[in-house]
Amino acid sequence: MDCIFCKIANGEIPSATLYEDGDFRVILDLGPATKGHALILPKKHYANLHEIPEDMAAKAMVLAKKMAGAMTEALACDGLNVVQNNGEAAGQTVFHFHMHLIPRYKEDHAGITWVPGTLTDDDKTEIVEKITRELAK
Amino acid sequence: MDCIFCKIANGEIPSATLYEDGDFRVILDLGPATKGHALILPKKHYANLHEIPEDMAAKAMVLAKKMAGAMTEALACDGLNVVQNNGEAAGQTVFHFHMHLIPRYKEDHAGITWVPGTLTDDDKTEIVEKITRELAK
Repeated sequence: MDCIFCKIANGEIPSATLYEDGDFRVILDLGPATKGHALILPKKHYANLHEIPEDMAAKAMVLAKKMAGAMTEALACDGLNVVQNNGEAAGQTVFHFHMHLIPRYKEDHAGITWVPGTLTDDDKTEIVEKITRELAK
Repeated sequence: MDCIFCKIANGEIPSATLYEDGDFRVILDLGPATKGHALILPKKHYANLHEIPEDMAAKAMVLAKKMAGAMTEALACDGLNVVQNNGEAAGQTVFHFHMHLIPRYKEDHAGITWVPGTLTDDDKTEIVEKITRELAK
């Protein structure tokens, strides 16, 4: 399979690497939302959160915590977003699981946000019923 | 401490609960970005990713995977964003660690994205040096 993140994670394509271990490589995003925007890439290929095994998902989040701490100290940022997109409709553009670590600065213009809607009683009842039924399967 | 997410997570304030175990409650967001927008809340209070212990961060991500699977089946959504904000500058409004699970639908208008910038050679050198030095401490 011809996956650019497989090649980057495994060092076949050079990258600005911040961290590497047996399971992951953390690199700087080439199209950063803000200064220091990084990506956590597993070395094995999983398309998304649905495919990645539980133990690797767990390790990825522990690594996100470690990186967030170091990045906050090193960059003196005011905040940090962790964003993990699944599917084209969610903005995923490379179909190899990755986590965005986006340092945030007061008065940056990254605008990673949304307009809050309303949870109606009908929606609430329907959604709770559908999801709890699915979880019980 | 008067934390609304502590009260919701521990059942002192009612919520539209999708899932509950000893460590977490998953609820519907009252100001949803899209239909089915949910929040993972630990029952213990941690302000953010910096404060949450590694084992709880790991469990939260495994739960995100479980919920993402069930939500995708139950809601027939086309994608899903996992978003975890740290600090006011990153859009965090309640200072109790939480993960947003945002189902995405083709042609929704949630707009959870950013404008890609450019990673200059100078930035790259500076950022890699600063963060790797911090990680080595």
